Amino acid sequence: MSGAGARMAAEVAEQPTVLQRVLDDGWAEAGRVAAVVAARAPRFVLLAARGTSDHAALYAKYLVEIRLGLPAGLASPSTLTAYGARPDLRDVLVVAVSQSGSSPDLLETVSVARACGATTLAVTNAPASALAGAADLHLDVHAGPELAVAATKSYTSELLTLHLLVDAWAGGEGTDAAGLPEAAQQLVDRRPEVAELAQRYRFASRFVVTGRGYAYPTAREAALKLMETSYVAAHAFSGADLLHGPLAMVDPEYPVLAVVPDGVGAAAMRPVLARLRASGADLLVLGGAQAQGAGGRHFPMPGGLAEEVHPVVDIVPLQWLALEMAVARGLDPDRPRGLAKVTETW
Amino acid sequence: MSGAGARMAAEVAEQPTVLQRVLDDGWAEAGRVAAVVAARAPRFVLLAARGTSDHAALYAKYLVEIRLGLPAGLASPSTLTAYGARPDLRDVLVVAVSQSGSSPDLLETVSVARACGATTLAVTNAPASALAGAADLHLDVHAGPELAVAATKSYTSELLTLHLLVDAWAGGEGTDAAGLPEAAQQLVDRRPEVAELAQRYRFASRFVVTGRGYAYPTAREAALKLMETSYVAAHAFSGADLLHGPLAMVDPEYPVLAVVPDGVGAAAMRPVLARLRASGADLLVLGGAQAQGAGGRHFPMPGGLAEEVHPVVDIVPLQWLALEMAVARGLDPDRPRGLAKVTETW
Repeated sequence: MSGAGARMAAEVAEQPTVLQRVLDDGWAEAGRVAAVVAARAPRFVLLAARGTSDHAALYAKYLVEIRLGLPAGLASPSTLTAYGARPDLRDVLVVAVSQSGSSPDLLETVSVARACGATTLAVTNAPASALAGAADLHLDVHAGPELAVAATKSYTSELLTLHLLVDAWAGGEGTDAAGLPEAAQQLVDRRPEVAELAQRYRFASRFVVTGRGYAYPTAREAALKLMETSYVAAHAFSGADLLHGPLAMVDPEYPVLAVVPDGVGAAAMRPVLARLRASGADLLVLGGAQAQGAGGRHFPMPGGLAEEVHPVVDIVPLQWLALEMAVARGLDPDRPRGLAKVTETW
Repeated sequence: MSGAGARMAAEVAEQPTVLQRVLDDGWAEAGRVAAVVAARAPRFVLLAARGTSDHAALYAKYLVEIRLGLPAGLASPSTLTAYGARPDLRDVLVVAVSQSGSSPDLLETVSVARACGATTLAVTNAPASALAGAADLHLDVHAGPELAVAATKSYTSELLTLHLLVDAWAGGEGTDAAGLPEAAQQLVDRRPEVAELAQRYRFASRFVVTGRGYAYPTAREAALKLMETSYVAAHAFSGADLLHGPLAMVDPEYPVLAVVPDGVGAAAMRPVLARLRASGADLLVLGGAQAQGAGGRHFPMPGGLAEEVHPVVDIVPLQWLALEMAVARGLDPDRPRGLAKVTETW
């Protein structure tokens, strides 16, 4: 493998295979873990993660609230690790999501949470990791070794694993996920189309990425990929938060990417897209039928998927965009400045 | 009142008076509400807010977790409003924070939460608002009419009100807050110093603002003020999250503001500041004794305050910075492009 971004490209392209593996191997495991968790009947779910995995955790927050009707929150690890908080976590499920399973702050979060009475679940790509060992329960995301610094296949396999877990917990059959490997392949195959788009953004130094509901984690993850590979100031906002202030900075020089798969989120994005049009923003909408005619350019996304599972594949063209923008700028997305594959924070 | 930003400037300068009023009038009210809440013994706290108030909610999340040992989370209003989730919220305290008390999505969040069994508390600057009426309990933040689009005094009065609530709930005496009006006045008086700094950033189009723990909400709010008044792409990261990817985009052309008041957060920021130094970032540290010698420029912050109450005043020089940068760019921070004082989202 050689050339700028070859490693990241190989892992982006591997995602259909990985997702199929998660479906084949992950459903039964998700069912077993879901049965244990459901038997403990948690009243509340706390999710702990960093970086890309934090966006998978955010997706899980929506799933837990909407599908399971349980209140959920993203943990602020520093309250347990740096400030020494020892909350009452009986009836709480703490889910730590981490590709490597080796960041010290997540490990400490899980250990403290367990000591405080929580049921703990680690979702990792590393069954032999310290994090997987420290938690009561573990789910392997089956992504296989991920070598590129910019996480891609581990992200989508985290999303799918979390979806299967919640679906099994909610008594579903895992059927919503069946079409994902094929949809991912369609999007992987559209790399040339995205490469052309990347040329258009060659000199953009800032981006806004937006979405609502289930699409918001996609916006967050797309922004992170753009930051870490192309070094552009890519800023993600939920559609609602964008209107509460940041919209002021958006002008015709500002490229905006809107992630608008068909569903409830697309309906909620309608007023946001109207305001963006009024601001004169340079708008690219990645979406389905509901988003057509929203103004700006339109990148049609695969149809026939439930809104809830769309995030698993919607990130694919945005991974390509980050990679192709980096390459167009003479950067190597496999060697982002100042980053290592495993980030240790305390 | 005339001149660019005159309205915002008047409200920034009014903050010492407002904070004194919150201390005088708010402590007894906070105690009454805290007694009711404590009697219901919630197991979990959910906070719902948008924009500037969302940063006050984030501050409250740290307070609740650290001071009260209760797990807490920020609500994603769309799960209740757009997706129609009806979670089991018995034993949950839902706190909605809003200057105007009139955003439809927060109003619906509180109504749904109440119907789902939650105890609900509205913290607003509008006791006659729909939100204040919809919640079981209400706390007035006593900021007085806020006319500038960019919220300033309502933010610091929300912070102080939430601090008093948690302090009363935890059995405290409100004493940590006593020095805040004087510290705020010291910072208000340093406007000329900040105006000089603003000149230095005249041509910056991007910013990173960072902090950890209690200082993270300050970083978030500073970034929002910069975006909505000066239209710069100001991006806030917790110190830990910055290391998980976004650090790659930081180079010597990138101005970084680090909020590092003395305390646990400052200790946790040490490795982050070292990495920023290594990246060659143009660093300005707003902090106390612990942050001296961290490299970059140093803006000394008032000493003698508990870390927990620092956010109430640490935002003041950053409010001035947003205002002065806007004015230096020929913009009127009282008339941000595309924004109204009350933002209605669904």
